Amino acid sequence: MADEAANEPDAALPGMLLRIDHVGIACHSLETAIERYGTLFGLRVVGLETNEEQGVREAMLAVSAGSPAGASYVQLLEPLGPDTPVGRFLARRGEGLHHVGYAVPDLAAALEAVVGRGARLIDQRPRHGSMGASIAFLHPADLGGVLTELVQPRDVRET
Amino acid sequence: MADEAANEPDAALPGMLLRIDHVGIACHSLETAIERYGTLFGLRVVGLETNEEQGVREAMLAVSAGSPAGASYVQLLEPLGPDTPVGRFLARRGEGLHHVGYAVPDLAAALEAVVGRGARLIDQRPRHGSMGASIAFLHPADLGGVLTELVQPRDVRET
Repeated sequence: MADEAANEPDAALPGMLLRIDHVGIACHSLETAIERYGTLFGLRVVGLETNEEQGVREAMLAVSAGSPAGASYVQLLEPLGPDTPVGRFLARRGEGLHHVGYAVPDLAAALEAVVGRGARLIDQRPRHGSMGASIAFLHPADLGGVLTELVQPRDVRET
Repeated sequence: MADEAANEPDAALPGMLLRIDHVGIACHSLETAIERYGTLFGLRVVGLETNEEQGVREAMLAVSAGSPAGASYVQLLEPLGPDTPVGRFLARRGEGLHHVGYAVPDLAAALEAVVGRGARLIDQRPRHGSMGASIAFLHPADLGGVLTELVQPRDVRET
């Protein structure tokens, strides 16, 4: 991945990442995890949905205030079964941090940019994420072992 | 942790967490990880320091703009040796997400609040973190297996 562009990343990727959008946490029981984060930090559920495609039931808990385009979240993930990505993660590692999601202003442009710089994609094209967002996962091997999601929140896409 | 207060967390913990301050990523080589995140996302190093107490060399890469009191970061962590917390993490799990840090307006008050709600602390009192912040770690067992850090950034403490 070392190339000349790496010496001046700002010039090539201005404002690519807007913020940390969420941390994804794998858990055995969504209800137990929601109660824990609610009790300890006062976090409230602002989105609760099942994503059959990803094999998870998930809850979004708002950390910072603001519109969906500016907020950040704890995303709790309960697998729909053992033979799902999160189910296999739990079997292998137990509960804990599963991935990190960064908000981007333009997902298609961001994917094109990172592929051009040597990243491998898990999702070749944007797909549906939480709360109406468009998302795509990047391969952890290029990001220090971190499963990384790029998120274009709904409010950003609609403007 | 189930108690009556859990039914009205907002009333008891108004604005406790300000935002996701950073994700901590364990890596074998700080230089390699800095180059990767710089190349792929255009992230730049805004802080580089050695924390002997925690046994790490670490780099803070700014994700979102703003003052230290409002920004968020990727924190890359390279262990000073195998017999350190991050060194043991790498031996056990390999490179990847190590912890998440949330910004709080008042660390002492936040620690008192979470202890009162049943959380166990790794750090009984605030200690020095990156870029002049005061920090403390909470035990992952109470947070769905997630090593969790509370951060009072320097700019917040000084106001």
